[in-house]
Amino acid sequence: MKTIPRLSLVGAGPGDPDLITVKGIKAIADADVILYDDLASKALLTYAKPKVEKIYVGKRVGKHSHTQQTINELIVHFAQEKGHVVRLKGGDPFIFGRGYEELEYAREFGIPCEVVPGISSAHAVPALQQIPMTSRGFSQSYWVVTATTKEGGLTPDVALAAQSTATIIILMGTKKLHEICDTFMQLGKEETPVAIIQNGTLKTEKMVTGCISNIEEEAAKHSITSPAVIVIGEVVKLGKNYLQEFSNIQAI
Amino acid sequence: MKTIPRLSLVGAGPGDPDLITVKGIKAIADADVILYDDLASKALLTYAKPKVEKIYVGKRVGKHSHTQQTINELIVHFAQEKGHVVRLKGGDPFIFGRGYEELEYAREFGIPCEVVPGISSAHAVPALQQIPMTSRGFSQSYWVVTATTKEGGLTPDVALAAQSTATIIILMGTKKLHEICDTFMQLGKEETPVAIIQNGTLKTEKMVTGCISNIEEEAAKHSITSPAVIVIGEVVKLGKNYLQEFSNIQAI
Repeated sequence: MKTIPRLSLVGAGPGDPDLITVKGIKAIADADVILYDDLASKALLTYAKPKVEKIYVGKRVGKHSHTQQTINELIVHFAQEKGHVVRLKGGDPFIFGRGYEELEYAREFGIPCEVVPGISSAHAVPALQQIPMTSRGFSQSYWVVTATTKEGGLTPDVALAAQSTATIIILMGTKKLHEICDTFMQLGKEETPVAIIQNGTLKTEKMVTGCISNIEEEAAKHSITSPAVIVIGEVVKLGKNYLQEFSNIQAI
Repeated sequence: MKTIPRLSLVGAGPGDPDLITVKGIKAIADADVILYDDLASKALLTYAKPKVEKIYVGKRVGKHSHTQQTINELIVHFAQEKGHVVRLKGGDPFIFGRGYEELEYAREFGIPCEVVPGISSAHAVPALQQIPMTSRGFSQSYWVVTATTKEGGLTPDVALAAQSTATIIILMGTKKLHEICDTFMQLGKEETPVAIIQNGTLKTEKMVTGCISNIEEEAAKHSITSPAVIVIGEVVKLGKNYLQEFSNIQAI
């Protein structure tokens, strides 16, 4: 039988293996080769056909990790050799996932690609703390931003976001927390609520809440480290664990 | 057996029934009553136990529809009478879904609540056109905004978004397309790419692409109407159907 190369970029979701889509599972069950990079994805490999090759291409602390270019080449190699490659990525492949780079490379070789969206930790981690992205009277938009630019500085979009009424979700931001808070302070937003959720959706999840003026202290007190999702905005007040501390919730 | 009231707010995803999560299906399969509001959810009702009560509470054109208050009351009533209520909502319950209002009401009656995140059309509809939310060299953040405020005007956040480098996703915006384009024009962003995707993920899906200066004309020419997702930003160029028209793609 002739090998028909194909790539499915599949979002594995934010950690809990039950937060993958049915479409994602069907892709895994159909795969001839699986390239995965997220420890959360490991439980999902049980959906694969027996004897399917499963290759870990993620980053493990202190171990050799594949470059993006190597991953791109592996995708094309296996698609041509074996057929249907599933590239299983944590979260959503198109949200800070570098998924597009993989898809673009495969396209250059004429390999048909499909994208299976996943649940991003950007939304799911706050949702599981019952913090909505939007809610009438609180926020009509949300902005998801990675704190660090390729050059290592704080992205200037944070300053614009701070001026808006959007709920702001900052990924990879714990090391920039001081600069982030400074940006909001300069706009007089000391009292804007903030939540930082570490290891979201996992058993080791922990959250601190506060406001711009005290969140740094709170985060230090509770030894919050990365990976963590920072949520800034009035909707933070709505979360189930914020309510216990503050009873005078008011819509803006 | 004593009835134990419980509410699961479940995201049904953007239309394709396979874009629900496994966790969502497990909740449906465990439900004692299902309140659903999205035509897309209909196929998902087959996961329910036999004889489970399934109540449509959505908005059908020209027919009576339930108010938010009635839906809130139905949730509490059925949780107390029957036990586990699944509230199945299109997309993600916490992204423009008014899901929080339902959860808040149920909480007031002491009903334990869980949120099962869903795939929002805001991300999935562009993703299926292979337009990423973020991609290195193109965009480091994305902003999801509903065009219309409660008062009916264009939300002022659009003007801030237009100044940023974010990918901008506008929901419920087709009727405000002229004002949206105007906002970008005033910032000299005539050439920023735009895609409008109608009926995303469904068989009737259609997309027009262009840039700020000509998208209104293009949308009119192709009779694009709501519901549609508007995507503004350089990432639009990366989509599979944009590439066919424009070959000189350049990273910014």
